[in-house]
Amino acid sequence: MMIKTIFWKNNSVVLIDQNALPLVERHVLCKSYKEVISAIKNLTVRGAPAIGVAAAMGVALGALRLPPLPPEKFRKQLLAICEEIAKSRPTARNLFWALERMKKVINHSRQTSQRDSVKELIKEAIHICSEDIEINRQIGKNGGFLFTNGDNILTHCNAGALATAGYGTALGVIRAAGEKGKKLHVYVDETRPVLQGARLTTWELKKEKIPFTLITDNMAGFLMSQGKIDKIIVGADRIAANGDTANKIGTYSLAVLAQVHHIPFYIAAPVSTIDTSLKTGISIPIEERKSDEVTHFKKVRSAPTGTKVYNPAFDITPAKFITAIITEKGILRKPYSISISRIHKGEKHS
Amino acid sequence: MMIKTIFWKNNSVVLIDQNALPLVERHVLCKSYKEVISAIKNLTVRGAPAIGVAAAMGVALGALRLPPLPPEKFRKQLLAICEEIAKSRPTARNLFWALERMKKVINHSRQTSQRDSVKELIKEAIHICSEDIEINRQIGKNGGFLFTNGDNILTHCNAGALATAGYGTALGVIRAAGEKGKKLHVYVDETRPVLQGARLTTWELKKEKIPFTLITDNMAGFLMSQGKIDKIIVGADRIAANGDTANKIGTYSLAVLAQVHHIPFYIAAPVSTIDTSLKTGISIPIEERKSDEVTHFKKVRSAPTGTKVYNPAFDITPAKFITAIITEKGILRKPYSISISRIHKGEKHS
Repeated sequence: MMIKTIFWKNNSVVLIDQNALPLVERHVLCKSYKEVISAIKNLTVRGAPAIGVAAAMGVALGALRLPPLPPEKFRKQLLAICEEIAKSRPTARNLFWALERMKKVINHSRQTSQRDSVKELIKEAIHICSEDIEINRQIGKNGGFLFTNGDNILTHCNAGALATAGYGTALGVIRAAGEKGKKLHVYVDETRPVLQGARLTTWELKKEKIPFTLITDNMAGFLMSQGKIDKIIVGADRIAANGDTANKIGTYSLAVLAQVHHIPFYIAAPVSTIDTSLKTGISIPIEERKSDEVTHFKKVRSAPTGTKVYNPAFDITPAKFITAIITEKGILRKPYSISISRIHKGEKHS
Repeated sequence: MMIKTIFWKNNSVVLIDQNALPLVERHVLCKSYKEVISAIKNLTVRGAPAIGVAAAMGVALGALRLPPLPPEKFRKQLLAICEEIAKSRPTARNLFWALERMKKVINHSRQTSQRDSVKELIKEAIHICSEDIEINRQIGKNGGFLFTNGDNILTHCNAGALATAGYGTALGVIRAAGEKGKKLHVYVDETRPVLQGARLTTWELKKEKIPFTLITDNMAGFLMSQGKIDKIIVGADRIAANGDTANKIGTYSLAVLAQVHHIPFYIAAPVSTIDTSLKTGISIPIEERKSDEVTHFKKVRSAPTGTKVYNPAFDITPAKFITAIITEKGILRKPYSISISRIHKGEKHS
């Protein structure tokens, strides 16, 4: 079952509406880059790699809708659009990585006509999208052997097809192991406040016919103490040069609990999630989101009016808690500063 | 502000409806012990000490509604009612402790008239209720000094006035420190799946004018890593002879995370929560509740239909993770097997 999270069609960006899932399966159409920004901000599209693809397609849409302009003005307006898209969400590295790729095309096409530039930009965005699926499949191939028949695997948030152009990172590794005939069972953290686990990961696993059990986030530690969890795998929003990893809030607690219970804790992410400009995780910007994500569920209020909330969307897991980082270029092991720098020199790991 | 969670009025049991809070403040009336059982099962009344009081009042209601009977038949029917109430929820020790107290009255009053027996039972139930408030105040007095001005305290679930006859255990200690003029700030775990933190603890703290911030359960570890939490205090549903403690699901994770971050982790509970018949926590029965608590919030579904759920309402925190247990008879320290056995011999600790 191929889930298409995001694709380019008839000069528009088509997104599966992740806020409507799992109750309603519908697509939304973005005809302007502003609509793409809204879709990123309101989580219609989410997950670091998917946000990267959306950003690239947003730039392409922006280019497509611009009126005929002198080349330099066209270029400047496109760079301004990139800046605007860059402000949509702060944490996921892939957003900025994808914009850098688009900016290269913008800057390289100074000599080409506006029409050809637009074509180049659309081509690059579509390329980033299809490339992402291939990268995920390679992550799956590289990581699938880490799981053995009968494993009970815990995952947090959604690092599946819905978080990427398709197939998934953490869930891609689970998928790949399943495709090789391994019988796995997945414990799904519901992942408050936005419930990406309860809403999205369950939906994907159900479609994939991989058995799963939904739990609330605060049950994970107790399950570990009962020996019910063999391995943990999650995605990543940004990985620093030393392996410190920003991922959905709650990841840090899981990683600490995993270490106390001697359970392997894996990150699965494309190399584009790695930000070698940051030495450690402490410099990764952590997005704080609106309080009503915590005080409400959908439109139903749970907390009294006026309740003050702290709502960081991500946390930072220090590298020491991470058993391995599974990328399309191989499995990275400690010390990550060395294995990550090798990858950036183009060496392949396993 | 005195919150009256449960009281006896006009030969009925009046309960604040905890399922309606915090949006609606209303009371429900139980006129039969069957209604009390329903109220315990559906969480209209919850929290170990409050369940104990409700159970006692349930027995009194049962006695009151029985038709005139031969003394032995009256006694047997009352014991059958006790058995039925005992099956309402399995984990909280206070339920069984309160029923034992009521059974003593039932068995001691073999020579008295049915009418006088009923009076005795009502008196005992009301006594258990008012005694509980006094016990909580003493727990607060004993524990209040553990908190210092400016402390950021994390609590989980609701161990407040609503979990008891009034005042609260863990929240009672916070209240007592506040009454002594200490400026505290409380981080409130929302406490999925039933959201006792988001719905009830916030409601109490708001009434008490103690500043608080609501977080999702999976944020607690990240806050600890940021140095934002100075102390953790929670209630208990059952404490084994060695100090192992059953409490709301999620407590275990907090206790492990507290130890890793060198944060004191306190339990506050009346001595009636201690079950010396159990050597360790492993024998404490853990209630598993319905899956729709996890797949839904109120009437709103979050997970796909047919989603399998694991929903333990409690977990067990090994004694080694607990810094101290605050009781009305003093503060218990490790080794708990010794401090607990001393308390049962009637010695006072501090």
